[in-house]
Amino acid sequence: MVGRKILISLIALLLIETIQAKDIVRFSPNEGDFTSVVRQAIEKAESEEIKLIFEKGVYSFKPDLAFEQYMSVTNHENGYKKIIFPFQGFKSVEVEGNGSEFIFSGQVMPFLFSKCGQVSMSGLNIDWSTPFTFQGEVVAINPEEGWREIKPFTDGFSWKLNRGQIEFPLVDGFKFSCLGSTLAFDPVSTAVSYDAKDIYSKPTTVERMPNGNLRVYEKLKKYPAVGSILNSKGPKGENRYAPAIHVISSSNINIDRVVIHHALGMGFLAERSDTFTLTNSGVYVREGSDRVVSIIADATHFCNMKGHVLIENCRFEHMLDDGTNVHGTYVTIDKVLNDHQVRISLEHFQQTGFEFADQGDELWFIHEPSPDRMEVNTVMDVKVINSKYSVLTFKNKLQPETKKGDVLENKTWNPTFTMRGCTIQNHRARNIVLKSPLKTIIENNTLSSMMASILFRGETYYWFESGQVGDVLIRNNTFIDCVQGGSEQAVFYVTPRLGKHFNSKAIYDRNIVIEDNNIRTFNNRIVWADRTAGIVIRNNDIVQTKDLQVRFPEAPTFQFDNCEDILIEGNTYIGDNNNMIRADEKSSKSIKIKKNKGIH
Amino acid sequence: MVGRKILISLIALLLIETIQAKDIVRFSPNEGDFTSVVRQAIEKAESEEIKLIFEKGVYSFKPDLAFEQYMSVTNHENGYKKIIFPFQGFKSVEVEGNGSEFIFSGQVMPFLFSKCGQVSMSGLNIDWSTPFTFQGEVVAINPEEGWREIKPFTDGFSWKLNRGQIEFPLVDGFKFSCLGSTLAFDPVSTAVSYDAKDIYSKPTTVERMPNGNLRVYEKLKKYPAVGSILNSKGPKGENRYAPAIHVISSSNINIDRVVIHHALGMGFLAERSDTFTLTNSGVYVREGSDRVVSIIADATHFCNMKGHVLIENCRFEHMLDDGTNVHGTYVTIDKVLNDHQVRISLEHFQQTGFEFADQGDELWFIHEPSPDRMEVNTVMDVKVINSKYSVLTFKNKLQPETKKGDVLENKTWNPTFTMRGCTIQNHRARNIVLKSPLKTIIENNTLSSMMASILFRGETYYWFESGQVGDVLIRNNTFIDCVQGGSEQAVFYVTPRLGKHFNSKAIYDRNIVIEDNNIRTFNNRIVWADRTAGIVIRNNDIVQTKDLQVRFPEAPTFQFDNCEDILIEGNTYIGDNNNMIRADEKSSKSIKIKKNKGIH
Repeated sequence: MVGRKILISLIALLLIETIQAKDIVRFSPNEGDFTSVVRQAIEKAESEEIKLIFEKGVYSFKPDLAFEQYMSVTNHENGYKKIIFPFQGFKSVEVEGNGSEFIFSGQVMPFLFSKCGQVSMSGLNIDWSTPFTFQGEVVAINPEEGWREIKPFTDGFSWKLNRGQIEFPLVDGFKFSCLGSTLAFDPVSTAVSYDAKDIYSKPTTVERMPNGNLRVYEKLKKYPAVGSILNSKGPKGENRYAPAIHVISSSNINIDRVVIHHALGMGFLAERSDTFTLTNSGVYVREGSDRVVSIIADATHFCNMKGHVLIENCRFEHMLDDGTNVHGTYVTIDKVLNDHQVRISLEHFQQTGFEFADQGDELWFIHEPSPDRMEVNTVMDVKVINSKYSVLTFKNKLQPETKKGDVLENKTWNPTFTMRGCTIQNHRARNIVLKSPLKTIIENNTLSSMMASILFRGETYYWFESGQVGDVLIRNNTFIDCVQGGSEQAVFYVTPRLGKHFNSKAIYDRNIVIEDNNIRTFNNRIVWADRTAGIVIRNNDIVQTKDLQVRFPEAPTFQFDNCEDILIEGNTYIGDNNNMIRADEKSSKSIKIKKNKGIH
Repeated sequence: MVGRKILISLIALLLIETIQAKDIVRFSPNEGDFTSVVRQAIEKAESEEIKLIFEKGVYSFKPDLAFEQYMSVTNHENGYKKIIFPFQGFKSVEVEGNGSEFIFSGQVMPFLFSKCGQVSMSGLNIDWSTPFTFQGEVVAINPEEGWREIKPFTDGFSWKLNRGQIEFPLVDGFKFSCLGSTLAFDPVSTAVSYDAKDIYSKPTTVERMPNGNLRVYEKLKKYPAVGSILNSKGPKGENRYAPAIHVISSSNINIDRVVIHHALGMGFLAERSDTFTLTNSGVYVREGSDRVVSIIADATHFCNMKGHVLIENCRFEHMLDDGTNVHGTYVTIDKVLNDHQVRISLEHFQQTGFEFADQGDELWFIHEPSPDRMEVNTVMDVKVINSKYSVLTFKNKLQPETKKGDVLENKTWNPTFTMRGCTIQNHRARNIVLKSPLKTIIENNTLSSMMASILFRGETYYWFESGQVGDVLIRNNTFIDCVQGGSEQAVFYVTPRLGKHFNSKAIYDRNIVIEDNNIRTFNNRIVWADRTAGIVIRNNDIVQTKDLQVRFPEAPTFQFDNCEDILIEGNTYIGDNNNMIRADEKSSKSIKIKKNKGIH
């Protein structure tokens, strides 16, 4: 009898039309758990094309009956993941939300698109019933005695004080091992607090005060301001379960009007996929919510894409990492096995399991100490040893200078990239991180940042994200009050980070054009470039605001280290800084400064 | 050129003879890493039968190039595991060690036998270059100020003091998040310290003293004795990476002369396999070593076996959990879907992913509140939803009383069990844990324990290990000084732990015969049985020793709660306890006490 009832409800919910070899499934909202309902629709699809249409409403997705699969997810923790919408191997997938709210709970990855040929998503909001963060208002600090007192947010947050420690989120059997990464936000501006630094929080003990406040005993280098809102997201290695939307080995992705209010990692993550368009979408805290954080990591993130990646008319706020990061992957040669084979190693623990190369890919060889891309060779075969090591067999004989410690970069998997008409502000880290060698355009955006607004940082070190940019145009953007916190950075910050065996003076990034931008910021530093050739700073309108106090008063407006071919032309500067340009000997040799106003 | 050298070395190492469709590979020791060498031999095997012969010597296995696979391992943490000997799907596997030492490092599972038809291993010792434990001698304690001072073991152990915390083992990029499970050992007897309790250690801070000792600040309920050796193995959820030898879905396993000195979990673990024989083997610390701990968890462990399991002439010492545990699995009915289908749930986090049932298995239905096995039904189909939930379809109509919260137990997968001629001592927890419904014989063993020596504890709670025993014979064993630490237990302790909806008075275990044993122990309690029918205590020779001080002086020698059909006959008791027998009203009704000496 029970079974029959379920069957009838399912029939009522799923009106499956199989028209022209496409599975079309319509859903109407109700108060139940939709996890099994969408899972059945996906698993029972008879064709390679599927379309899910959600009547506008609120849909709830719980973790219990979710599909599970071991997943390597770049820049997240690998593991056995619960996936609510597991789209794998479809020729085409369409998800029409019609303005619906999708409310998730527990540790889940909402959407996976793996090996899909065509993906479109539209008109839906993603949120969690309970966020995986802990929040408290700082009501008192005592640096001498080493404590802060906070008034914890209770409504809508899940936590408890247990044996002198704050445990959260206590959802679905999970809790973080400590408060972990912690950051202060300004309750009025909702931005990261002025001059805030990342805190790694592991209190010695926490006491409950008679008024319900918590006294957190922990020596900090710098205590957050009284009145600020402290948000904790758990420690590194535990707090990046999965992105909200994970695209891998797919092509032609179109996402329109999708808003992510919370996620257990990044917002939109795409890896090794071809052509991605995100329009009229966003990552931000729901209006009226008292959360100061939207998602745990980057709003958007692209690793070894190809084709074109476009982000247009989007809004990214209150996430705990970059607005976007467009990069490839450096692997190191662990061993040269013979004149056609090398064993390679993925270096960062969140890169393990990443498919760095496949048969037919063209790879660049980079022979340290030079960071430059040298010969190209085509992969004939990949034998995966395990999640860290693989053996690559190449078409052509390896160059004799190939050796352990050299680096490979995938030439085939790099995208052209455009970001246009977006607003990125009030979040941790950088607005934009650029590392693609191909044409990159950043235009008509409004940007305000905690750290650098636009960062260039290929790394043959820690993160091992490639690579050298070669064609970047940053134009007609408005920059407002950048580098409000963190360490000393600049609005435009070019700073490759290479392993110790690499030449620390050699040119790395090339051809960055910064023109026609409106820059309204309180700090001194606008451009700080290291090892850059062909940087053009043209026709920008720079006004130093008085909104906040200058954080590094001795810093120059423009600084160049180890650079070549610098052009500073037609810019205007209105502000108090008299220390306009600092260039080392090498950079000074080929710097051209002309037709600027207020720049001397 | 490099490649050619490797090829030549490989040919030298691997003399592959393919005789009668069996791959026979011989290995000679050298100083290199053997991980790739054995991996290649296994992966390149051309037949379904493989034999690896190791010339006597020391072989080193590093984790870097190991095969990796996602694994569900019962009573361990599931995850992506590095496996050095990944035997999967062979008709027969033979590993001949000829007395070799296999030295592992880092997080690895040494041996996996999955879906193998015939397994034999002989003549090898398993150890780790660096153990995953931290050890220190307690040199001072100060309960008032809440600290202990320890002299850390340095030689052969890996750890460092970092920001006021002890980090270990710092091997292969891994460290535990805290000291975690900690236990004191007596440096003279090498047993667990007298009256020791499990400590969960997460110090507030640790200071290095001028003499190199560490002062560990942490309030403990009970401080370890000065002079004892404290060993930490990291916290639950992190410290059971894998057993040394993992047998799953295999049959006819014969292991002879295999000794495990260290492992990152259990020693010999077999699940859902048919017929297992372990002879002349052991788990213990290498002679001359200053380690007080051999392996992290149970020496042997059997989950849902069938056929016969025999453990003979083995020695198990210094492990941090039971000598053996023979059990099945209870799953709960999460939902009755229709008159032939239920959705079941695996309940303990270390059971997720376990294959509870397959097509053709006969299952017992247990309708709470009764813990008894009721009707049997045959599984026609299993649909795995995820690692926790599955849908089972049965051959016969479900009984109408079937409901959410009822429990299922697998009737097909239970073994007969014999343990004979073994010595189990100087380790944490119980010597032997028995839960199989089939014929179980424990004879001619020498046993000494921290907790109960022999425990009966089916659980429809926390661990969800089944089940009721029905035919147990414990004879001719010598028990020496049992229940040296932990909570109040008995040499023979029968104590089912059922969920709150179960009848807490109903008979659970049946037909336990304890006869002709030599019991030499300092504590009062010999037998403590709850909810047991047909317990026979016959012709045992009990002498209370003076080796240690009685821990629970008020405790009786024999206690019976909610029991039926008790026979105490022909035993002799020499000792100080005057409080011989305590039986509640129900138990008193059918107790027979006759022909004993010293028992009144």
